[in-house]
Amino acid sequence: MARWFQRSVYQIPRGTRDFVPEEMWKRRFVQRGIEETFRGFGYGEIQTPSFETLELFTAKSGASIIDELYNFVDKGGRELALRPELTAPVIRCYIERLQMAPKPLKLFYFGNCFRYDRPQKGRYREFWQAGCELLGTDSPEAHAELIALAFTILRHIGLRDIVLNIGNLTVIQAMFERLRVTDAVKKDLLPFIDKSQFEDLFSALRVNDVSPQEAEAFLEMLQTPDLEKITAYVSRSKQAVAELERLRGVLTLLKESFGIPDPRVKMGIVRGLDYYKGLVFEIEAPVLGAEKQLCGGGDYELVSLFGGTLVPQAGFAIGFDRALLALETEGYAFPEASLDVFVVPVSEAAMGAALSAATQLRFQGLSVDLDLVRRGIGKALKYAAAQHARFAVIIGPKELEDRVVTLRNMTDGSQSTCPVTELAVRIRG
Amino acid sequence: MARWFQRSVYQIPRGTRDFVPEEMWKRRFVQRGIEETFRGFGYGEIQTPSFETLELFTAKSGASIIDELYNFVDKGGRELALRPELTAPVIRCYIERLQMAPKPLKLFYFGNCFRYDRPQKGRYREFWQAGCELLGTDSPEAHAELIALAFTILRHIGLRDIVLNIGNLTVIQAMFERLRVTDAVKKDLLPFIDKSQFEDLFSALRVNDVSPQEAEAFLEMLQTPDLEKITAYVSRSKQAVAELERLRGVLTLLKESFGIPDPRVKMGIVRGLDYYKGLVFEIEAPVLGAEKQLCGGGDYELVSLFGGTLVPQAGFAIGFDRALLALETEGYAFPEASLDVFVVPVSEAAMGAALSAATQLRFQGLSVDLDLVRRGIGKALKYAAAQHARFAVIIGPKELEDRVVTLRNMTDGSQSTCPVTELAVRIRG
Repeated sequence: MARWFQRSVYQIPRGTRDFVPEEMWKRRFVQRGIEETFRGFGYGEIQTPSFETLELFTAKSGASIIDELYNFVDKGGRELALRPELTAPVIRCYIERLQMAPKPLKLFYFGNCFRYDRPQKGRYREFWQAGCELLGTDSPEAHAELIALAFTILRHIGLRDIVLNIGNLTVIQAMFERLRVTDAVKKDLLPFIDKSQFEDLFSALRVNDVSPQEAEAFLEMLQTPDLEKITAYVSRSKQAVAELERLRGVLTLLKESFGIPDPRVKMGIVRGLDYYKGLVFEIEAPVLGAEKQLCGGGDYELVSLFGGTLVPQAGFAIGFDRALLALETEGYAFPEASLDVFVVPVSEAAMGAALSAATQLRFQGLSVDLDLVRRGIGKALKYAAAQHARFAVIIGPKELEDRVVTLRNMTDGSQSTCPVTELAVRIRG
Repeated sequence: MARWFQRSVYQIPRGTRDFVPEEMWKRRFVQRGIEETFRGFGYGEIQTPSFETLELFTAKSGASIIDELYNFVDKGGRELALRPELTAPVIRCYIERLQMAPKPLKLFYFGNCFRYDRPQKGRYREFWQAGCELLGTDSPEAHAELIALAFTILRHIGLRDIVLNIGNLTVIQAMFERLRVTDAVKKDLLPFIDKSQFEDLFSALRVNDVSPQEAEAFLEMLQTPDLEKITAYVSRSKQAVAELERLRGVLTLLKESFGIPDPRVKMGIVRGLDYYKGLVFEIEAPVLGAEKQLCGGGDYELVSLFGGTLVPQAGFAIGFDRALLALETEGYAFPEASLDVFVVPVSEAAMGAALSAATQLRFQGLSVDLDLVRRGIGKALKYAAAQHARFAVIIGPKELEDRVVTLRNMTDGSQSTCPVTELAVRIRG
């Protein structure tokens, strides 16, 4: 029978979320899986403040990012912003405290970020990112390991259908050079490339005096996985050719040494063109449709921009909320939160024995709840079932007299009696 | 040999902290211990947004709290504030989403909070709290369990010397009534009571026309653990006498059923007088001196203030940063972060075998790093030692030829060879 409850005077801020226990159970489960994999690859966790000086983010992303930030002036007159991402804070911390640490340095994070954005499906104003930064090496092994780590994390948490695409920003820049278009035109073309809107891209190229043959060739290079063809296309750029040679090595390592079955070449990865350089990759979950990107990463150059001493840098970030959404959409069977034991004192006189039994079982590492509202046994067992209790321990006058307790298996309803001291062993099976 | 690194252009915001991997390792270790105990007592985790509407906090604590908040207006004109504590958000969420859930409802949280405050030792502008709210029961068992939970958490994480004090705000109000002082005078007296400055308190009472005998009696009641004496002192208040009777029951339960050896009666607990009601308790770590309070809690009444349907409410919050500081001050031996294996390919030719070995060991659940910068074996082993690696796996020309690897115990330097397939078993010992 539903009771009517009064409404709250205060609401949750728009675009943010509360997570109740059954949701937090799933989130912590997936978070643990992510952390295990990072540690398995030799990464150590780092944590930075929730807000930073505003300039840290404008230095990285330009003043236009302010429109998407939660920025404010504190009571001391400082311009601050809630962090929209974690790479800039981690690099700031690296420069302040970790430049002297032995290299390579492998740092991972799991944290909330903030974006002032129109709320929509899968996009929130407070959201979570898991990611890492690798400092001090840019060998092909290091790049392959970084990509393998991102892929392994998403596999390890239970995703079945994920696609890994690898591109290179030096190569795409060389491809642009062949088109001989201005920077302004290039900028207009990027959204079409990013969204794989090739017909629109073709039209835009034609409008900007690129010949049909040249436009066709450019479109083919964006889509082909054939590194030979791409190498021939950008052969005038020594840098691009060298990057393609490295990419070939990374692909071989991924397949042969890291057990990644099907890494795909995709030169059409153009996100973060001002920020990343060289290697870039993304992992998608096709099940999510338009919002399918779960992970993005690559080589970048931020340490020297922030005043530190130049060092090779690479990293990636996984959208935690979106990865969870992908798991749910794939129908992943999350383990259920459960309670080991619910203790029911049948009478007032049994309360002391019930509390002692609960305390003993807790000291033995079991999760235990007990009836704190003195209801009848029927209602207490119903509540225990609602808490997903695996066992109930019932203590009434008969049990007190015989110095035993009744142990009820909540799954099949079977009951037996035993001394309190034997409970933990029986429950653990 | 120290190298000189360039300084960062950007600094961490004043009063906030970065946590590098060795610090995060400790923090996550203690956090896990806290979460285990909450779950062991049948609590489920809840998480709320980092910011709320400003009015949520002013409704609870009055407009004066704004001076201590990070508050700001968002781009949609909403007045928001970074949360200074978690009880108000959790109760807001309870009213919006959980009023219909079976009672009692046991919710715990672990989260960061924000306070615009002059930074000083052990006080930060971003800090962490672990706490819980118990909704739907106020039986003596429930109160005793709540207090036992707070105490058990602090013991479980490894604190040796902690003191539990229990008071009652209904009783202290009845004590004030005997003094016949105005509310304004009462307010002036509170800081002396809070800080146990009894000489100053005596003077203040005398200045306000309280007789020496009455002042002495009041001071005695603030300090005595004798419930009989206190009951006699407040005998004119039926409510206070009833609360003392309940308190007697809670103390008995704590000692006899929950194994808390020495709960102390302390009527001088006056913090949160506007917010808590009835039962109130605190846990201190004397090792921390003036900043010794680790935990505060009790009965309160917030649901109806926020528009929800009245229900018994109690809870507590533990200062996570201060609990860590107490552990460190007590000299707690934190387990050290370590790596299971560091893999060293001695030659370029061994890289493939090294990566494959690392991948296999990772799939078997071990934490594995490997030399990503192609240095000599001596330097690689030095780096492995710096990462606290327990074992090194060395693969050179001889090993490749014999299809084995060399396993080096990094603790004692002993070495032996074996096939890759036997590594995990040997490492797990």
